[in-house]
Amino acid sequence: MNGHGGNIWAASRATGIPEDEILDFSASINPLGLPMKVAEAIRAGIDRLCHYPEPYSEGLSEHLGHLLGVGVDSIICGNGSAELIYLIPRALKPACAVIPEPTFSEYERACRIAGAKKVLGYRLKREDDFDVSPEAFAQKIVEACASGRKSGRSGGPCGKPGVVAFLCNPNNPTGRLVARNDVLAIAETARQRGCYLVVDEAFLDFCPGESVVSAVKENPSLIVLRSMTKFYALSGLRIGYAVMHPSVCRQVIPYKEPWTVNALAQKAAIEATKDVPFQKASLAAMAEEKSFMEAELLRLGVEFIPSRANYYLLRLERASEVKAALEKKGILVRDCSNFAGLGPEYLRIAVRSRRENKILMKEMEGICAPLS
Amino acid sequence: MNGHGGNIWAASRATGIPEDEILDFSASINPLGLPMKVAEAIRAGIDRLCHYPEPYSEGLSEHLGHLLGVGVDSIICGNGSAELIYLIPRALKPACAVIPEPTFSEYERACRIAGAKKVLGYRLKREDDFDVSPEAFAQKIVEACASGRKSGRSGGPCGKPGVVAFLCNPNNPTGRLVARNDVLAIAETARQRGCYLVVDEAFLDFCPGESVVSAVKENPSLIVLRSMTKFYALSGLRIGYAVMHPSVCRQVIPYKEPWTVNALAQKAAIEATKDVPFQKASLAAMAEEKSFMEAELLRLGVEFIPSRANYYLLRLERASEVKAALEKKGILVRDCSNFAGLGPEYLRIAVRSRRENKILMKEMEGICAPLS
Repeated sequence: MNGHGGNIWAASRATGIPEDEILDFSASINPLGLPMKVAEAIRAGIDRLCHYPEPYSEGLSEHLGHLLGVGVDSIICGNGSAELIYLIPRALKPACAVIPEPTFSEYERACRIAGAKKVLGYRLKREDDFDVSPEAFAQKIVEACASGRKSGRSGGPCGKPGVVAFLCNPNNPTGRLVARNDVLAIAETARQRGCYLVVDEAFLDFCPGESVVSAVKENPSLIVLRSMTKFYALSGLRIGYAVMHPSVCRQVIPYKEPWTVNALAQKAAIEATKDVPFQKASLAAMAEEKSFMEAELLRLGVEFIPSRANYYLLRLERASEVKAALEKKGILVRDCSNFAGLGPEYLRIAVRSRRENKILMKEMEGICAPLS
Repeated sequence: MNGHGGNIWAASRATGIPEDEILDFSASINPLGLPMKVAEAIRAGIDRLCHYPEPYSEGLSEHLGHLLGVGVDSIICGNGSAELIYLIPRALKPACAVIPEPTFSEYERACRIAGAKKVLGYRLKREDDFDVSPEAFAQKIVEACASGRKSGRSGGPCGKPGVVAFLCNPNNPTGRLVARNDVLAIAETARQRGCYLVVDEAFLDFCPGESVVSAVKENPSLIVLRSMTKFYALSGLRIGYAVMHPSVCRQVIPYKEPWTVNALAQKAAIEATKDVPFQKASLAAMAEEKSFMEAELLRLGVEFIPSRANYYLLRLERASEVKAALEKKGILVRDCSNFAGLGPEYLRIAVRSRRENKILMKEMEGICAPLS
């Protein structure tokens, strides 16, 4: 067990409830499911599975480059963005990482495995709705760079000892967004200090217009990660990509393993980006369901963090009992007690379809007491 | 370009020939294609792609454990065996690697990326048909361990400075097999010297009875890699696994990335292992096609290395011209000039279906001159 959400397989084994009957609110995936045209492309690709995929997803990279207005030499595709979360520290070899708390736990693990000696946590506060303060976060980066200069490890776009900062935007598990201009300001600090800022936009498709992808051209300190497993419901197939300045790409590629993105994922990703009606329908459905969920949570008196993503962080009494009671009924929610900076009173729930959201809210009614 | 075979996508771009019309003899994949039941399982899995895969392929690992007679704590599944080729050196941190020449080039790259300072090549000789001498290879391991002891890096099952030796069996690109007992003898040397022997059995399904998988229980120095992309024609989907002593598994798992094996691959692998009729038919077809190919190569006077795998290493005059002439007709063969220990006179060809093999032989007739 790796302590993440989305493991319907383990839940099915634990509860005896068939996998297909489990309602999974523990992973935050587009409730519309994968686009029909994407499913068709996958189906059509089965006959060609005897062939190796393109070793470095060359075709997909080119397609994404056109789409994003960057060169193909700015893109690295991955077996989900998880591969890239591990690849980047392995290649850049930071001596120190700067990581908000709470956030996605794989950043720290990846940096530790890659040999980072120091991880500087940037603690987000409940009284601020766990908002990242761009100034305070930038200050943390400045501190890390100053202390990093004393250590001996290589790295950093200016050849200074390496610091890599991570920013999940919107943040997982809080759903809080740092506005585009503020992210760019943090990235500018990173540039001035000669360190890297990795912005993980895994859930940013739900906040169109906020991506900083286009800024990698001017700032070699900025690396952007994108996942296609959430918005396009391709979690099981695995596909993500990183966008960075070509000079940084050239540093990372020598560490990249070949054939990591399977052939179906490469085809699926291309189809997914083309499906504009699906994208529009997803945003519309999500907006509607979020209004519904927020109204329901208010009605139930359950405290939640206002979210820009397709999930909510809840704070409630006896959270672990609530989770267990829901699980018995085949409903999974994400226990957040293992996030650094959170405690046993936190759960994360995804926004799903109206039918499913209603079931969750109905089940929560009665068993959830607001936290005083 | 990574200099491997099997890239029909690049070949199609270079020649203008549609991907589906290319005859790919450059990758060595079962010509029967993926089993029908496996294709069905993949098709049935598309609807569930919205769910994350099991993060560490728990269900598949359990299934493989039963099948192989080892515990689930002896198995690590990978995104193709390529993931495991990189994972193992990353976890074991060898100071030195022992690698035959010629062999699959990713072993050396993986060890270098993982920080190995020294790679000791074990040169195979044409006059021996590129056979691995178990005694000489074991001796090379002994040498590496002796010199490794002077260096400072950790690793090794006995806590001695780490040496990892790789043995691809049957070897790629020569097709030469080291008999089971000889592999076990080399593994015993590794055990005595406190280093690791990684036996890559990627093509061993074509030589039933020769696997050393069961010996991992008694020898923590032995690590066995298996690929399911060749025999089961799942190259595009990516699936492989490693079998090792539970004590070594515990050393490797902290370095394993989550969700690397996509959900379709996990399901496909389980179905594939169950398809005994497909396995029998594949072995029978391969035996027949190999007889045909050998007879044809003899008839054409093309020198080849007798092979136990589903491919042949050829040695011929003007090999690069032959390759180019074939490519123009949409036929890919593997240029072997970039294998350490080989030269521009070597090509590798896969064994495919009778129809395809006939086409290749017909095209080779006339353009191939034997090398004097």
